[in-house]
Amino acid sequence: MDGLKATVSAEGCGPLNADASDLGRPLRLRIFDYVRASGLVSRSQIAKDLRVSPGSVSPLAAELIEQGYLRETSLPRGTGDAGRGRPPVALVARADAFVVAGVKIADRQITGIVIDSTGRQLASMKRSATPGPHPLDDQIERLAGIVGEMCAMAGIAPGNLSAVGVGLPGFVDHAAGHVFWSPVLDGRNLPVVAAAQAHLGVPVVIDNDANLVALAELWFGVGREMPDFAVVTIEHGVGTGIVLDHRLFRGAHGVGLELGHTKVQLDGALCRCGQRGCLEAYISDYALAREAETALRLPVMGSAPADELIERLFTEARNGHAAAQSIFDRAGRYLALGLANVVNLFDPSLLILSGDRMRYDDHFVGETLEQMRSMVLDTGLGVPPLKIHEWGTLLWAHGAAALALSSATETALGGGRETAG
Amino acid sequence: MDGLKATVSAEGCGPLNADASDLGRPLRLRIFDYVRASGLVSRSQIAKDLRVSPGSVSPLAAELIEQGYLRETSLPRGTGDAGRGRPPVALVARADAFVVAGVKIADRQITGIVIDSTGRQLASMKRSATPGPHPLDDQIERLAGIVGEMCAMAGIAPGNLSAVGVGLPGFVDHAAGHVFWSPVLDGRNLPVVAAAQAHLGVPVVIDNDANLVALAELWFGVGREMPDFAVVTIEHGVGTGIVLDHRLFRGAHGVGLELGHTKVQLDGALCRCGQRGCLEAYISDYALAREAETALRLPVMGSAPADELIERLFTEARNGHAAAQSIFDRAGRYLALGLANVVNLFDPSLLILSGDRMRYDDHFVGETLEQMRSMVLDTGLGVPPLKIHEWGTLLWAHGAAALALSSATETALGGGRETAG
Repeated sequence: MDGLKATVSAEGCGPLNADASDLGRPLRLRIFDYVRASGLVSRSQIAKDLRVSPGSVSPLAAELIEQGYLRETSLPRGTGDAGRGRPPVALVARADAFVVAGVKIADRQITGIVIDSTGRQLASMKRSATPGPHPLDDQIERLAGIVGEMCAMAGIAPGNLSAVGVGLPGFVDHAAGHVFWSPVLDGRNLPVVAAAQAHLGVPVVIDNDANLVALAELWFGVGREMPDFAVVTIEHGVGTGIVLDHRLFRGAHGVGLELGHTKVQLDGALCRCGQRGCLEAYISDYALAREAETALRLPVMGSAPADELIERLFTEARNGHAAAQSIFDRAGRYLALGLANVVNLFDPSLLILSGDRMRYDDHFVGETLEQMRSMVLDTGLGVPPLKIHEWGTLLWAHGAAALALSSATETALGGGRETAG
Repeated sequence: MDGLKATVSAEGCGPLNADASDLGRPLRLRIFDYVRASGLVSRSQIAKDLRVSPGSVSPLAAELIEQGYLRETSLPRGTGDAGRGRPPVALVARADAFVVAGVKIADRQITGIVIDSTGRQLASMKRSATPGPHPLDDQIERLAGIVGEMCAMAGIAPGNLSAVGVGLPGFVDHAAGHVFWSPVLDGRNLPVVAAAQAHLGVPVVIDNDANLVALAELWFGVGREMPDFAVVTIEHGVGTGIVLDHRLFRGAHGVGLELGHTKVQLDGALCRCGQRGCLEAYISDYALAREAETALRLPVMGSAPADELIERLFTEARNGHAAAQSIFDRAGRYLALGLANVVNLFDPSLLILSGDRMRYDDHFVGETLEQMRSMVLDTGLGVPPLKIHEWGTLLWAHGAAALALSSATETALGGGRETAG
């Protein structure tokens, strides 16, 4: 994310698209969002880009300035479009209008950042975690701990945060603030937002980790100017985030995009979800781990944690162990199949792969593109570019922070309607 | 479509959603679209629903009236929101502002309608067709013939049509007006729009048939008020049309949504597209026909046309022929798998099934819903409602007409930018 950080402070953050944010949202929210995304923009340019009259921008801009959301600044020479004789003046988002934290709770690691309204990073932190599910209260304690430490680094009181965004693996109901199931939490159907808000005392918003990657790209990365892209994450499960027309697509009930549970084989391998033939049952870590036990002639069940088994399997495969190689090969072919299905359905301009599994990318992703070619619809357009995120970056935490920033902005300026794209 | 027709004349046509049509489109186009969709609406209500000032609506409404797109009418008593003392006045779309034709060219049948700006049907026609591919020129002659006859019935000159919308099965590049491949056309890569425009002398716009079904529902059916739904058509191939947030989703390059070519089996059955394991290779008519030859102990290749084979197979299955039954059973299970994948990815509020295959719905669709339950993500939301279109209706032609009406409106009022949703 180092490259992204530089971009952020110079150019603002958020989808740089005037049209896409126009779905019935109040004009003052659209103006604030557009200024934040632009970094620096004149009133007349705002009116032009948002296709509204300059007369409707001025009073709302004045209100946003008075309320502390925007401030005026001089336009750099040569870039202004102001009239002759008047000094060129632009609007910028006030950095202190919102300060938010974003935290990703993963199986082995918790990462977090604190950013201001302009997307500038004020603090960041990485902590290793004990793998496996934990009680909700313990995870909330851990969340509060990392948020508190980051706030101390940034010199602000945790209670002054506008919002905290939290990303988790699993089935997350973003709108309800509810987790159906997550590999990092004991139990099911957990009121994560309510518990976190009660502890932190500030608004909390949650989402699943694949959506966080999509949001990170939408707010800080390629998505700022690219209208359509797809993210596939491979860790404990297989997640998908889809951005269509500059907005994160969530489906009618917020539970779509479960690529990991699309069926790729009738009556196929048993999936952790209880159904058969799910893509996840061929490529996620538990799928590899259960075959690793067979390949490495280990006793079935509980011989070792999944990540240790996969590490061993990976070492064996690299040393020429045929059965171990065949496990990675088959998983790679199923990954190619899953990605080809995403392309054949969503026709994205870019495919982004993220997640813990990318550590094994030489084995796992190496031939994926080639195999995708034989499964992507032959229209002459070829396979879309594939971008692979490095493992262990602050990317996911950035996505969680974008979620928090979006939520805080909507609450303050949009009458509470909340959306992240 | 008889039920729909009544709705159309009373309530206008087009997606009844003020927000979704707001993607950078000129306000006068948005006003016209909103009046057409509403059927009857006051200026103040337009301003309210489009979230613009009443002052910006009035001059554009006056312009649209003067140019012959809208007219004033009295609001029915008790429904007006006009001020005291003034007679309540509403705007309606002028029926004669645009007259368009929509034609669906299918394998066995050509259907067409002519409608006016308000969606009222002026003429319709069904012609049986000789199955199989035909030279482009012959199909264009046939198209021109049916358009000419319908115009005679409606009492208008074909040259006065604002646009003609044409739907075809196959891989259709809507934006380029180009057909990569279609079972009703000889050859590949055909400039269908250019050829049709040269013959008809009016603007022509094309799309694939699954998108037409989605458009028909979006403009005249459930989609007028439902933001998200999915259409799956099963005829020669398997098509998909997806409406997200009141708009037809076409993917970044207009070639997404090829559900029929998503892979449901690694190294699976050979598909007509040349790849293996496509859903279509398990459920489309040629997939059934090639197994029919085995089941019915016929000589391989060319024993009979596919539709005859399937008719025979269907009769045998009904009479208890086990192998014939197993063909329909397997196809039904793969259909359930494909539909479950659509639900797991797109999370639609409604699934619509259309196409020639629906004639066999008792065998083909009967157990589909039940089988879907075991493949749709278990979140407690269950399987979305499934709606099955009767075969042989004018539905597809309505979709083609909506395409034409949308295109003509955009050309006249939107500076040429063209979209159908």
